[in-house]
Amino acid sequence: MDIKSYKKDFDYSYTLGAFPTFELIKYRTEQVLEIFVHSSFTDMEKLTELCAEKKVRLTVNDKIINKLSDKGNVYVIGVFMKFEDKLEEKTPHVVLVNPSDMGNVGNIVRSAAAFNVRDLAIIEPAADIFNPKTVRASMGSIFRIRHRRYQSFEEYRNTVVEERELFTFMLNGEHQLTVANCPKPEVYSLIFGNEATGLDDSFLNVGTSIIIPQSELVDSLNLTIAAGVGMFVFGNDNITA
Amino acid sequence: MDIKSYKKDFDYSYTLGAFPTFELIKYRTEQVLEIFVHSSFTDMEKLTELCAEKKVRLTVNDKIINKLSDKGNVYVIGVFMKFEDKLEEKTPHVVLVNPSDMGNVGNIVRSAAAFNVRDLAIIEPAADIFNPKTVRASMGSIFRIRHRRYQSFEEYRNTVVEERELFTFMLNGEHQLTVANCPKPEVYSLIFGNEATGLDDSFLNVGTSIIIPQSELVDSLNLTIAAGVGMFVFGNDNITA
Repeated sequence: MDIKSYKKDFDYSYTLGAFPTFELIKYRTEQVLEIFVHSSFTDMEKLTELCAEKKVRLTVNDKIINKLSDKGNVYVIGVFMKFEDKLEEKTPHVVLVNPSDMGNVGNIVRSAAAFNVRDLAIIEPAADIFNPKTVRASMGSIFRIRHRRYQSFEEYRNTVVEERELFTFMLNGEHQLTVANCPKPEVYSLIFGNEATGLDDSFLNVGTSIIIPQSELVDSLNLTIAAGVGMFVFGNDNITA
Repeated sequence: MDIKSYKKDFDYSYTLGAFPTFELIKYRTEQVLEIFVHSSFTDMEKLTELCAEKKVRLTVNDKIINKLSDKGNVYVIGVFMKFEDKLEEKTPHVVLVNPSDMGNVGNIVRSAAAFNVRDLAIIEPAADIFNPKTVRASMGSIFRIRHRRYQSFEEYRNTVVEERELFTFMLNGEHQLTVANCPKPEVYSLIFGNEATGLDDSFLNVGTSIIIPQSELVDSLNLTIAAGVGMFVFGNDNITA
């Protein structure tokens, strides 16, 4: 199998590094095409065992590793077919509207997994969730949650059940999020806009608009922080360590 | 004035981009050495006015801008002398022990400013807070808070007043941080470790150890998310939008 440097229109992508590759093999086994490992990888036994157990093809190939690892320091690469899921109807969703930065998307996926938000909707155009940089920023947690892409917010909205409550995070949101007064809905979506532009004013009427209180020292929070704080505060009762 | 590409041992650094440069000129005026602007900058009038008001030297110099802006898309650069502050004794502190990523440090500075934590201690060795990448990731909020570097955690600890309560964020922390039970100390420090290694076990005895509840789907939270959630939940009563 010949693997080319990643491009967005490929129907496959790959993990860079041992940790996300282990996550891939364990939790999205059926998506795996092949695992490549560098001959100097130090944890070969564990990898060999896991691949055997999961019936995944493992190949030692220094040349492919050297070619695909952009920064070096990568000894394992997992090639996988891209996938998409049906989101669950009654679980918390995080909805990213036009996120532009791959690192941010990966970071938010990691926070979502950490805070038990296991369903992610991405509204296009958006940073590529399957770019190896996104996958790496997620630390492989992209393989632990469900996600689906939509061509517009309306398309997403048309899929959700009636009792789902929508919360839009906006600098001109009407309700301040505080630890004491956070709503406790049964079924909810937390919706965040683009890094530079946020959500436009049409989102003020989508559901309940929320602002995370912040001092006058900054223009806004970083998107990953807003999403992390939002998911933590909304979900806090349901997270167990 | 000739400006070289940044190196850590310089006694000056520079902002890349209009937004952080405006923050520099407004809030750390006395540190400014010179502002450089590209002849095609579109907001020249506002910049000229601010520099005149603050008595800061402004020079049109396309060559320096092109040389220093690593990614392009930079039209304004502010050269400034590095600085350090005395931290306030009775305000919340955030303490970063050996952070290694410049983007993370800048991002945490931005969250600290947003959540009214205006005093930052950095324990060396640590990512360079004055690297232009850190300054840019902070969106210029490095000019809105106080910070000081320490050679060891002990050195920091010896400076703090007796009533200050220390909270160490650790994966093996004893107390789960929940929205309902967050301590409400008068004077406190929130202490976070390195991205890869966290805080070592000696920090279990430093004060009150805290874990942010997280699911079994992830190994840990991203450092910036842990710090953002910690500062938000501890400070929430005192943040006003």
